[in-house]
Amino acid sequence: MLRATVTGRVWSTKRLPEMPAGTILEVVIDGSTSRLLAFDPLGCGEGEQVVIATGSVAAGWFPGKAPPIDALIVASIDEGAKS
Amino acid sequence: MLRATVTGRVWSTKRLPEMPAGTILEVVIDGSTSRLLAFDPLGCGEGEQVVIATGSVAAGWFPGKAPPIDALIVASIDEGAKS
Amino acid sequence: MLRATVTGRVWSTKRLPEMPAGTILEVVIDGSTSRLLAFDPLGCGEGEQVVIATGSVAAGWFPGKAPPIDALIVASIDEGAKS
Amino acid sequence: MLRATVTGRVWSTKRLPEMPAGTILEVVIDGSTSRLLAFDPLGCGEGEQVVIATGSVAAGWFPGKAPPIDALIVASIDEGAKS
Amino acid sequence: MLRATVTGRVWSTKRLPEMPAGTILEVVIDGSTSRLLAFDPLGCGEGEQVVIATGSVAAGWFPGKAPPIDALIVASIDEGAKS
Repeated sequence: MLRATVTGRVWSTKRLPEMPAGTILEVVIDGSTSRLLAFDPLGCGEGEQVVIATGSVAAGWFPGKAPPIDALIVASIDEGAKS
Repeated sequence: MLRATVTGRVWSTKRLPEMPAGTILEVVIDGSTSRLLAFDPLGCGEGEQVVIATGSVAAGWFPGKAPPIDALIVASIDEGAKS
Repeated sequence: MLRATVTGRVWSTKRLPEMPAGTILEVVIDGSTSRLLAFDPLGCGEGEQVVIATGSVAAGWFPGKAPPIDALIVASIDEGAKS
Repeated sequence: MLRATVTGRVWSTKRLPEMPAGTILEVVIDGSTSRLLAFDPLGCGEGEQVVIATGSVAAGWFPGKAPPIDALIVASIDEGAKS
Repeated sequence: MLRATVTGRVWSTKRLPEMPAGTILEVVIDGSTSRLLAFDPLGCGEGEQVVIATGSVAAGWFPGKAPPIDALIVASIDEGAKS
């Protein structure tokens, strides 16, 4: 997984009907300038440090037929808790 | 997923018969110089900002047997709507 | 998918028996110095611009049990046809 | 797989219920500055050199339905044993 | 696939029981400084140029349940045979 920080949210009215309802957040991978767009089932906010799973693993989390989602926020990192 | 901007279209007469009919667009990943070719089911145009899903997730979106497509435009980003 | 240019061919006598018969071409990803080796079902030649699908999507194109092939030329780009 | 060195651990109270119980370690890929977060079933410690498998292969290791885990420590490298 | 050169071997006593018996080699991707660890079913030696398949395609090559292996040497490149 990747450690990343939430930087914003994207809206899209024009999208595939198979995209699940919910929030797509933009994140920056910590220690880099790479950005990803990830589905957020946890209700994360800007500046929050999160854990991102990518690829078919992200799509497989959804119940039923896998949607075309390849990045998923799977956890939020507790503040001040890295050893 | 990746945020990208559409920069053009590619045509190919010589291609695998398993490639689905439809448009292949060239996009540049925002914040980088990396280019991808993605299948476009949404009818996007040059300069449009889009969301790209990659890997087996892209192929799995197609009905029936998965075609050899590993990048798919899943949404277009609303203009002026990033928070 | 990736846009790439064919730069050569590789031969290997010592290989897994599950590798399909056919040509493995070396390509350079356009706009980068990254090289890939891709299976070529289309009969492409040096200097030709091609479209490459990667990952399990490439292996899934083959009939029967998926071979250990993770890059496949799926199309050749028409010359002078990019808009 | 990737050779990496364990640099820390992350805690997250807020996470998907499908995340398996267990430790998530932070590692740095050897020879780079890239960091990954990987599930650790082996009980590794800081400074330990490990082997990381990524992608759906990592999720597929878990019994039952694959969890949203895309990086797994599959081995620890014996000290002083590289030839 | 990736063209790479074998640079060494890794040993690990502490590893998942699902790891198949056999050799894990360290390789450097040609034209880069990136290193990978790959399972070697072909008996390759240091300095040998090889072809590496990565991802679920590598794990799928093994008979039975896919092991947590995401890189596999699928061929050795014939010396002096690149056109």
